[in-house]
Amino acid sequence: MSNINVIDSLSLQNEKRIILVVLDGLGDVAFPTVRGKTALELAECPNLDRLAAKSVCGRIHPVLPGIIPGSGPGHLGLFGYDPLVYDIGRGVLEALGVEMEMVQGDVAARANFATVDENNIVVDRRAGRQATEITTKKCKILEEIGEIDGVKTIIKPGKEHRFVVIFRGDNLSDKIADADPHTNNNPYKEPEALSSDAQRTVDILKQFITKGRELLKDYESGNCFLMRGFSKHPDIPSMRERFKLNSCCIATYPMYRGLASLLGMAIQKPDDAELDSQVALLYELYDDYDFFFFHIKGTDSAGEDGNMAQKVSVIEEFDEYLPEILDLRPDVIAVTGDHSTPCVMKQHSWHPVPLLVYSDRCGTDQAKRFTENACNSGGLGIFEAKHLMTILLSNAGKLDKYGA
Amino acid sequence: MSNINVIDSLSLQNEKRIILVVLDGLGDVAFPTVRGKTALELAECPNLDRLAAKSVCGRIHPVLPGIIPGSGPGHLGLFGYDPLVYDIGRGVLEALGVEMEMVQGDVAARANFATVDENNIVVDRRAGRQATEITTKKCKILEEIGEIDGVKTIIKPGKEHRFVVIFRGDNLSDKIADADPHTNNNPYKEPEALSSDAQRTVDILKQFITKGRELLKDYESGNCFLMRGFSKHPDIPSMRERFKLNSCCIATYPMYRGLASLLGMAIQKPDDAELDSQVALLYELYDDYDFFFFHIKGTDSAGEDGNMAQKVSVIEEFDEYLPEILDLRPDVIAVTGDHSTPCVMKQHSWHPVPLLVYSDRCGTDQAKRFTENACNSGGLGIFEAKHLMTILLSNAGKLDKYGA
Repeated sequence: MSNINVIDSLSLQNEKRIILVVLDGLGDVAFPTVRGKTALELAECPNLDRLAAKSVCGRIHPVLPGIIPGSGPGHLGLFGYDPLVYDIGRGVLEALGVEMEMVQGDVAARANFATVDENNIVVDRRAGRQATEITTKKCKILEEIGEIDGVKTIIKPGKEHRFVVIFRGDNLSDKIADADPHTNNNPYKEPEALSSDAQRTVDILKQFITKGRELLKDYESGNCFLMRGFSKHPDIPSMRERFKLNSCCIATYPMYRGLASLLGMAIQKPDDAELDSQVALLYELYDDYDFFFFHIKGTDSAGEDGNMAQKVSVIEEFDEYLPEILDLRPDVIAVTGDHSTPCVMKQHSWHPVPLLVYSDRCGTDQAKRFTENACNSGGLGIFEAKHLMTILLSNAGKLDKYGA
Repeated sequence: MSNINVIDSLSLQNEKRIILVVLDGLGDVAFPTVRGKTALELAECPNLDRLAAKSVCGRIHPVLPGIIPGSGPGHLGLFGYDPLVYDIGRGVLEALGVEMEMVQGDVAARANFATVDENNIVVDRRAGRQATEITTKKCKILEEIGEIDGVKTIIKPGKEHRFVVIFRGDNLSDKIADADPHTNNNPYKEPEALSSDAQRTVDILKQFITKGRELLKDYESGNCFLMRGFSKHPDIPSMRERFKLNSCCIATYPMYRGLASLLGMAIQKPDDAELDSQVALLYELYDDYDFFFFHIKGTDSAGEDGNMAQKVSVIEEFDEYLPEILDLRPDVIAVTGDHSTPCVMKQHSWHPVPLLVYSDRCGTDQAKRFTENACNSGGLGIFEAKHLMTILLSNAGKLDKYGA
């Protein structure tokens, strides 16, 4: 029996409510160039600190020590799904990010418009980062292709040169190597089957490419497209099946709502991207669910931009709203991130993410602030994110004893 | 090769002695209602603190973070047996608890006397918690059944309405669903085979039930019995096989002696339930073994009763005896628990358990007291209990280098 099955078999349903606040990319590292402090250390967070003082703290490795997680694995871990067991493909993630709906059997691919020369050499993989409007127009053109051998093609533009294609039909495979040379000045690359039962899908992809390139051939820039990250809607048991949770996602970004929908969470879209609207929605829905995934994107965006002041400001804004969230008197509340995005690195990193868990039976420790350093001395230690859900369930009395 | 096999293949025999002191349910959580301190924080333990200051400390997750362990999994972990791999069934544990001997192939079940009405509805699963004397008398009556199709039935009363049945014969299976509706006012439930090769065992169980109910039919209360937790003597390699240890259990409670016997430990019964007798026995046996499992039950009982003063007092009593134990100059001594039993929760919990390990090569850390908080900053971190034995063996020079 795998670890995860053990947890599943112990889960109990009750009325207790769990709020999991994910400040995306929350973790940071201190560098002399940024006053030797992390965003959490620089931020003035009286409410978070007060909560930390009566919580149990720790830090989590989203996947494993040293592994730099993408958003998919980062979130899967937080929800109790071992990211080394469950995999959400890049194509799928991209499709969710542009709010495309996927059904079982679909194969999704990330795509970009690119430019090839007369010798079929990819001279610009991003077609000069063509404007979103041009991409939108070209996607309309590609929609003409429609169905190929009974497989429907569904196309949606993203930002700049990016778009997504979903192939919908029977017996499709995602065991297909990228149709992308990955670097400029290499020959255009056709898709290749990685397993024998992927050949039919590859044939359909090739027809799609041939028809698409014919439709685009008169453009000087962006006269072709590259596809990668072929992936299927994953076969993942829902949070209801596994944990008997009636769960709900409150997130402003489509990709995180999409991720949550893969796990069977109810998706609730705030009126706008303001934290105020997210909290209002939490209040509105509080009686209807027993698990809330509350996602805040700004910390990650600021980290990716290397904008420490902005990251601090997003954290401080959350701190201001924290009392209102606590007024709901959730039985369990956890605050953490799906990974670190240190401002000095401007990208996702492997650094363990600060965590606090509060309930009336959480236990305490000597962490009196909510910072990376304080969390190092916490009573939860530094552990893999996939165990967090077990801790949350236990704190909510939603987990039975293991063994006699 | 599993982790455990790695350890097994590295174990070495030598004369060094290891004492593992298990204060059952030791871990606690601090709540305002108990002066915001844990039992270890409230207890005055000059000797434990002095030992902690020169030990290496940490905390252990008995099974995995967040998992609430039963006594079986809690102890298996301490002895280096992954509790997610090795499983001791409820029936077996109950049989050990009433000092029944089990041999390979036996199937044990927990049972209670219960009352059914004329429509075969279980109206009281515990027969009004009938007195132990009545249970003893009824068990005597059930002994008349004796053998069924070559399968011997062995019966022993427990406390109040509880008793244990062992079925001894060839080719028995424990893949059997409980013969227990689990709640009152439901129809009496016959045992059911969970796998096809359990059918013969189910037939024998049904005969046992029919004969037994016939014998009890004239009782107004407790005119039948329910059986659950069917389980076999587990197939577990001994500590001698795995670690080359000549191990011995000094415990006052039968269940813990039984658990130890499953792992091939020699079982030594103290004269009485006093710590004084346990320590005297340790002295008597010190030359004969190289691993001592020294089990103290009082901490758990006090925790289950929510009696903080009593839990503190058990810990302080152990502290008084500690110098006498240390006078034996064990090469390695560890003090920990098999799980936490916080007084405010009155039950087993998932909170990691404080641990200290002392040897002349243990290393040190900043933990200067033996408390949950101090152990958070210990040099061993917070880890799964199954790794403790490896640490003990290494401290005793009983583990070879892994790899060149």
